[in-house]
Amino acid sequence: MCEPESRTVMIKVPALLLDEEKCRLNIHAMAEKARINKVIFRPHFKTHASHEIGSWFRQEGVEKITVSSLRMAQYFALDGWKDIIVAFPVNIREIDLINSLARDIDLSLLVESPETVANLAGKIKSHLSVYIKIDSGLKRTGVPFNDPNTINEILGEIRKSGLITFRGFLTHAGHSYKARGREEILRIHKESIAGMAELKSRFSDEYPELIVSAGDTPTCSIADDFSMADEIRPGNFVFYDVMQTAIGSCSPEQVAVAMACPVVAIHRDRSEIVIYGGSVHFSTESIITPSGFRAYGIVVCNEADKWGGVMSDAYLTGLSQEHGIVSMPADKIINYSVGDIIKILPVHSCLTANLMREYLTTDGRRITRF
Amino acid sequence: MCEPESRTVMIKVPALLLDEEKCRLNIHAMAEKARINKVIFRPHFKTHASHEIGSWFRQEGVEKITVSSLRMAQYFALDGWKDIIVAFPVNIREIDLINSLARDIDLSLLVESPETVANLAGKIKSHLSVYIKIDSGLKRTGVPFNDPNTINEILGEIRKSGLITFRGFLTHAGHSYKARGREEILRIHKESIAGMAELKSRFSDEYPELIVSAGDTPTCSIADDFSMADEIRPGNFVFYDVMQTAIGSCSPEQVAVAMACPVVAIHRDRSEIVIYGGSVHFSTESIITPSGFRAYGIVVCNEADKWGGVMSDAYLTGLSQEHGIVSMPADKIINYSVGDIIKILPVHSCLTANLMREYLTTDGRRITRF
Repeated sequence: MCEPESRTVMIKVPALLLDEEKCRLNIHAMAEKARINKVIFRPHFKTHASHEIGSWFRQEGVEKITVSSLRMAQYFALDGWKDIIVAFPVNIREIDLINSLARDIDLSLLVESPETVANLAGKIKSHLSVYIKIDSGLKRTGVPFNDPNTINEILGEIRKSGLITFRGFLTHAGHSYKARGREEILRIHKESIAGMAELKSRFSDEYPELIVSAGDTPTCSIADDFSMADEIRPGNFVFYDVMQTAIGSCSPEQVAVAMACPVVAIHRDRSEIVIYGGSVHFSTESIITPSGFRAYGIVVCNEADKWGGVMSDAYLTGLSQEHGIVSMPADKIINYSVGDIIKILPVHSCLTANLMREYLTTDGRRITRF
Repeated sequence: MCEPESRTVMIKVPALLLDEEKCRLNIHAMAEKARINKVIFRPHFKTHASHEIGSWFRQEGVEKITVSSLRMAQYFALDGWKDIIVAFPVNIREIDLINSLARDIDLSLLVESPETVANLAGKIKSHLSVYIKIDSGLKRTGVPFNDPNTINEILGEIRKSGLITFRGFLTHAGHSYKARGREEILRIHKESIAGMAELKSRFSDEYPELIVSAGDTPTCSIADDFSMADEIRPGNFVFYDVMQTAIGSCSPEQVAVAMACPVVAIHRDRSEIVIYGGSVHFSTESIITPSGFRAYGIVVCNEADKWGGVMSDAYLTGLSQEHGIVSMPADKIINYSVGDIIKILPVHSCLTANLMREYLTTDGRRITRF
């Protein structure tokens, strides 16, 4: 049954609820999949960006992680993580932080041009590793996988430095986020992985230890065969979100975070509820619903301090800075009063978590983040 | 001349630059316009959300302010602001904060249903004021201006309470944000203001002191005649942004904030620069450029520690979480190297400032915010 009145009386302002059980199940499932496939599991920590949630990965045996900025690497290094890759092209303006991290941990950086390597080589004081960023089709950044000349130039610069080790090739098949359904995701995965395998065989005589790092949440959630990658780096799966359910990576029941928002006004005449919760809480990411309108979240049933299944035809359909407009059928709206809590799965959990800055677990603990 | 190499060597990671001179000019111009029109100037502080920038308004004689949440009211009350309206429907779950603010300052809240007033009346311990939120066409929230019955019911509940004073009618013509150009903004302003004037004359016998509070950034920037409103509450004008230039509220030269982002990769073959600066810095708000593609910001020329005019055909055209893709013509891109700073006017300064959490003035000071 869908309980309209929440028992979560401690919630006064919009909160990002975290269901620890679902989150740990997501972590366990992916760690298990990596073990079965015998690939290195180097999860991306940018989605949760939290020491405590990081410790749940440690309990699954994870020792290597991925982050999206040098400052985030510093945050996790302070919590004892010793093997971190910053999956972002080197920002040479942060050379002081690069040097301090390289002194303390096993730091890996991403490079994609001979100039950057030369620049880095001239400024580093401790040993560090690099991956060459390969563009396997996203056309965001990276060396095209069919451009061995540039790769050779980069490797030449790396060999000149006594402090830089070449680790391998890294790619992010981010265009899988535009995919819909199992078949399309698998096709993108296959194409992306085929180019990387070709690269690996081309350079493995000279660099027998080189690895291929690949794999985002859609492909790692759907694919069963990771045989072409040596290392996977999915991140979003820790929470999943509405976007991932739309892509086909997960079911709504696997989504481990939900926004809890106070109801501040009800307009029964137009089947709308006004909530405290807007673009500064959710972000403005949206999906198009099956009925063809834009939605910023999907309403779920209240279930004591947790949440239940998806409520049919109930969506967050409008966002102002602090307000949100929830549309729901007349037979549902009669259950809500001003002052109630309404729970909503976010479209993009990475951005929502970044805006909310902390988690409230369904058993009432607050978890901080970077 | 457009200087490609920035002298702002202190910038290591994406920063939100604030040009204090432009910002103070924006504040002064709007304060002056309010003085000439003899309306109360109660600026919305949600855009800047900063004690220091608030003090620049004080220097223009401002004493009354608008905020978007009770917690933001608390932040400004701590800085000595004594007359604050929270322009958001009452969130009854924050009754403790309402009581503490009502004890210390002249607090005004927004109501839009008899139930909320009754609920509030039963829980408050100190005197406070309310405005009735009127929907003048946006259909987001508020009582429709042509529904005097609901207004009378609300007024009835207010009269029953010895602690609540009725101040007047408040509206937000937020649909002016969808307007393009002077004529359309003025038409929306006129319609919105006409409904409010009708309401005022209907209730002014009974409440001779009642005021009409109206006016957002587009209407207050364009309109010269505020005679129908007693109080204006624009907010975004303090910085303006690309969206406001698209609407026609300001020129690009009036925009007082710009993102400064390190260049991390350059792809000359496709005329693209990869910057450190993504959706967690800019927000995902976008405009459609005159050439018909989506843009998340407009590139401006570097000019020492400040920025100059808009660079033609140079836009932020792609956003990932931490990356941005800048597209610019081949004859411009040759001036940039990895490690340079690129400056970009944001599409929606309110959301960008909320994400960035602080300002770096063009003379090198850091200004904190709520």
